[in-house]
Amino acid sequence: MKLSKNNLEQRIDHVYDVIIVGGGAGGLSAAIYLQRYRLSCLVIEKGKGRSFWMQDVTNYMGLQPHTPGRNVLQQGQEHALAVGADYLRGFVEDVTDEEDLFNVKVKIGKQNSIYSVFRSKYLIAASGIIDNLPCLEDMQNVYDYAGYNLHVCLICDGYEMADKQCGLFVGSEGAINTAFVLNWFTPYITVFTNAQVNVGESMRQKLKDHGYRLIEAPIQNFGHNHEMTGVELADGSTVELQTGLVAMGSIYHDGYLRGIELKRSGNNLVTDAMRRTSHERIFAVGDIKEGINQVSIAVADGTLAATAIWREIRQASPPRRWEENLIGAVL
Amino acid sequence: MKLSKNNLEQRIDHVYDVIIVGGGAGGLSAAIYLQRYRLSCLVIEKGKGRSFWMQDVTNYMGLQPHTPGRNVLQQGQEHALAVGADYLRGFVEDVTDEEDLFNVKVKIGKQNSIYSVFRSKYLIAASGIIDNLPCLEDMQNVYDYAGYNLHVCLICDGYEMADKQCGLFVGSEGAINTAFVLNWFTPYITVFTNAQVNVGESMRQKLKDHGYRLIEAPIQNFGHNHEMTGVELADGSTVELQTGLVAMGSIYHDGYLRGIELKRSGNNLVTDAMRRTSHERIFAVGDIKEGINQVSIAVADGTLAATAIWREIRQASPPRRWEENLIGAVL
Repeated sequence: MKLSKNNLEQRIDHVYDVIIVGGGAGGLSAAIYLQRYRLSCLVIEKGKGRSFWMQDVTNYMGLQPHTPGRNVLQQGQEHALAVGADYLRGFVEDVTDEEDLFNVKVKIGKQNSIYSVFRSKYLIAASGIIDNLPCLEDMQNVYDYAGYNLHVCLICDGYEMADKQCGLFVGSEGAINTAFVLNWFTPYITVFTNAQVNVGESMRQKLKDHGYRLIEAPIQNFGHNHEMTGVELADGSTVELQTGLVAMGSIYHDGYLRGIELKRSGNNLVTDAMRRTSHERIFAVGDIKEGINQVSIAVADGTLAATAIWREIRQASPPRRWEENLIGAVL
Repeated sequence: MKLSKNNLEQRIDHVYDVIIVGGGAGGLSAAIYLQRYRLSCLVIEKGKGRSFWMQDVTNYMGLQPHTPGRNVLQQGQEHALAVGADYLRGFVEDVTDEEDLFNVKVKIGKQNSIYSVFRSKYLIAASGIIDNLPCLEDMQNVYDYAGYNLHVCLICDGYEMADKQCGLFVGSEGAINTAFVLNWFTPYITVFTNAQVNVGESMRQKLKDHGYRLIEAPIQNFGHNHEMTGVELADGSTVELQTGLVAMGSIYHDGYLRGIELKRSGNNLVTDAMRRTSHERIFAVGDIKEGINQVSIAVADGTLAATAIWREIRQASPPRRWEENLIGAVL
């Protein structure tokens, strides 16, 4: 059921089998599987994750290719609730490992916040990442553009950028290398540093050799009305564009794990084939773990983590017997 | 585009990047990704695979939980066609490896069949498995029952069997062990051997200890009208049931791979993390490879295989340059 400030005292004494931090594609898939395995779980979702912002989920088999991310998540949330999952809108501030159980501290409500602690045997980290975007003064929300013709994922949206004049917005010199993958889709690449990046001589030469432009002036403005029509520079000139790709790194939503040592590769959690982290009762699914960041992968991750947890709980439980048949078996 | 006897000569000289054997969830996901990576692929589907028969896909995040399998496949097929995949209804009889290219021999049409050979650089084996079912005289098609309340997958449908009187139909003594996983969902288990299996003393005792019944008489009939209401035995008696699970092993659709040596675990193809088999240009996705047999897993497999193939082809291709910028760079 949906939990809120009004009803959460009903669950304060409950020990969930699993608490899932994050209600994106991976977390919801895990919840659907766990509940169908007759385990109890709580999904805690802070809202407005990466897939929520996608205007079109274009590559998930079985869905119409222009289904908005928020609709997919809504469907997944209804599905999880229908099979008995609990769902709470809140922000997980901290997790502590009390040997057998996790204590999960949640802030609920942005105003007049309250704090509550939920407990579970297992934890699934499904809290994802969010892309860094250029900070521009006159933009209320740069996500206004993301998912239309300004993109953050080359695998998802390279196809949409094919043969178009494309701006590549970078936050580091290393990110300029994205140009040499992006060029599979389009060679008409202009790299923008927004005056934030030092570009060395060899990278300048590499760009020149490929015919890609490098613009280091500060950016004033992107297009208008969700359209990446061009970039207006601080000097008033405009660079015409038809599409753009932001490659400025990501923020990892994993502050709540700070007290628990977990094996990482860069910022990503390292997992085994069933998505178990280096902690035997913590699993990780979706963008926060190693691998490619795709809805289809997150959904399979959720399947795997839920299945591994089910196996372990099942194998540790006494078998259910058919009592009436035990004495003087019928046949 | 859809290929048929009438238009396939248009593709006879074409070398596809990838031929995908099987148009189920995994094959279609691979096709969608490959085409979005601007590669060319052909999906060859024999029809009526395992997911086609599912009355309800109940655990795939993003879909309504009672979407029939055939609708999911139809959506995936339209999606793949919309991004430019070729799709052919036919049966792949043989694949030969000509060093750089595969020759894929396809039988098209059940009557007045013709044979055609298509060529590709890579092959994705997505041809799946199909469950063995009891052979009963008066059943036109046992699949009439499958996916209603007679099931073939414990992970998918254990939830639907919860606390019901369940028949377990086995094809070997080993398969009786399924009872000791099924009992997570329901203890009311009756095992049917249909007079086809020798059951040893220790297994008999194990069943008795759990209170599960064992019926070794030949089966005459399942329920009626898609309902597993009970099993009628050859002696005319009836065992009442509310649901059933068939655990009689599977047929692997992999005859076309007979000429190519591939590493296997049992009947399953062994793959690496990107779903590459022991042959560097053959990938395997879905039920034919190791792992759990789920739509979500197959879809992610398709994503991974397509991505690995794209990386390899891209890295071997010359980079696209922006020619007009090469002499006297603009900025």
